[in-house]
Amino acid sequence: MTYCVAMRLDAGLVFLSDSRTNAGVDHINTFRKMTVYERAGDRVLVLLSSGNLAISQAVTTLLQESNHAAEGHCLMNAPTMFEAARVVGDALREVRRRDAEDLKEFGIEFTAAFILGGQIAGEAPRLFQIYAAGNFIEATPETPYFQIGESKYGKPIIDRVIHRGRSLAEGAKCALISMDSTIRSNLSVGLPLDLLVYERDALCVAKHVSIENDDPYFNLIHNQWGESLRQVFAELPDMP
Amino acid sequence: MTYCVAMRLDAGLVFLSDSRTNAGVDHINTFRKMTVYERAGDRVLVLLSSGNLAISQAVTTLLQESNHAAEGHCLMNAPTMFEAARVVGDALREVRRRDAEDLKEFGIEFTAAFILGGQIAGEAPRLFQIYAAGNFIEATPETPYFQIGESKYGKPIIDRVIHRGRSLAEGAKCALISMDSTIRSNLSVGLPLDLLVYERDALCVAKHVSIENDDPYFNLIHNQWGESLRQVFAELPDMP
Repeated sequence: MTYCVAMRLDAGLVFLSDSRTNAGVDHINTFRKMTVYERAGDRVLVLLSSGNLAISQAVTTLLQESNHAAEGHCLMNAPTMFEAARVVGDALREVRRRDAEDLKEFGIEFTAAFILGGQIAGEAPRLFQIYAAGNFIEATPETPYFQIGESKYGKPIIDRVIHRGRSLAEGAKCALISMDSTIRSNLSVGLPLDLLVYERDALCVAKHVSIENDDPYFNLIHNQWGESLRQVFAELPDMP
Repeated sequence: MTYCVAMRLDAGLVFLSDSRTNAGVDHINTFRKMTVYERAGDRVLVLLSSGNLAISQAVTTLLQESNHAAEGHCLMNAPTMFEAARVVGDALREVRRRDAEDLKEFGIEFTAAFILGGQIAGEAPRLFQIYAAGNFIEATPETPYFQIGESKYGKPIIDRVIHRGRSLAEGAKCALISMDSTIRSNLSVGLPLDLLVYERDALCVAKHVSIENDDPYFNLIHNQWGESLRQVFAELPDMP
């Protein structure tokens, strides 16, 4: 499983992904699920993936190859974020045409989900969620975030805290708390994490960090959040 | 969907269930998911159900009928909680033998899950989770709670707070917070709630309340928990 979350705030974009993949609990590996496409001054695109690893790797490889070939439509020459989301959708459809029938013969469903966010010069930052069928939806001011993978454990805290007016630091903090709750409840989501914070109109990546087991800020979040929750719990009155 | 949670604490048992059923978001109804079997001084059994409503209703009806007939094995004459869990499992198997094939022809899987908890004179309180196949597991000191239905949203708070040494009031409070998080994130879980708190060795039900929209304690939990979370969130330091 996987857990990825991304937010589109007025101040910019926040992306967070874990790196655990598993084919059963006896086959757990570490694969990064965040890919960054950047041309400073022109565009920053961030792609998060979940679902069948063979499918999501095939999609990112196709996208990479089309970028290198630089002909036809590709992420690095898409004129808008909407067109970039279409490029990802089309790559997904190509992989589906090639693999879906064979997977079916092994009883494996074609599952994949992507989040694509970023900014292309001339546009505001935008955020999309792309489904296995290759179609997609865009984040709006009312629903400024998307999650893919094991999303439920970490959803309540985002629903309670996040709105478009939050700062990037607050967005990152909330994403990390959401990830911490997910990791605590689900073995198939795990460190290291990839965190990328994109400041609106920067058109380059200023903050992209890998969070390992010994990361002091993530450990502080982990400990202090749990401790504070228990304290708040203790302070709530008992039922009369 | 449904959300039910039950805890086996040293002090006794806590049960909480919602009452929303849906067949698509355009067909939402209210059905209670908690059934209580009580003979004061001898036994208290509480059954929580989730999954296909036709299946869980058929199971509870069969259990009711066998109690009235009072022959063969039934919940009211089971000598132990283990045997009582078997009675529920057998009722489930009977319904499956009758319905599963026909459901399959309509592409409907046979899904149902039950939690059975309680105390029978001569035993300590016990708690079981019963699967659609009719088999079951029992709660232990290390894992003193079970959830069925839409369980993920409300799991992190239980994992952080609940251990067997918690009081019944704390268990009820935690169950209500867990339910509140679930209702906030999932339209298919909704009020009224059924809350039952069973004190160890009482062998009768002292506290069984229905929680409606205007319940002051649930509203206090709802508002104060959300508010406190936002405050704790604000007090956590930003990423350096």
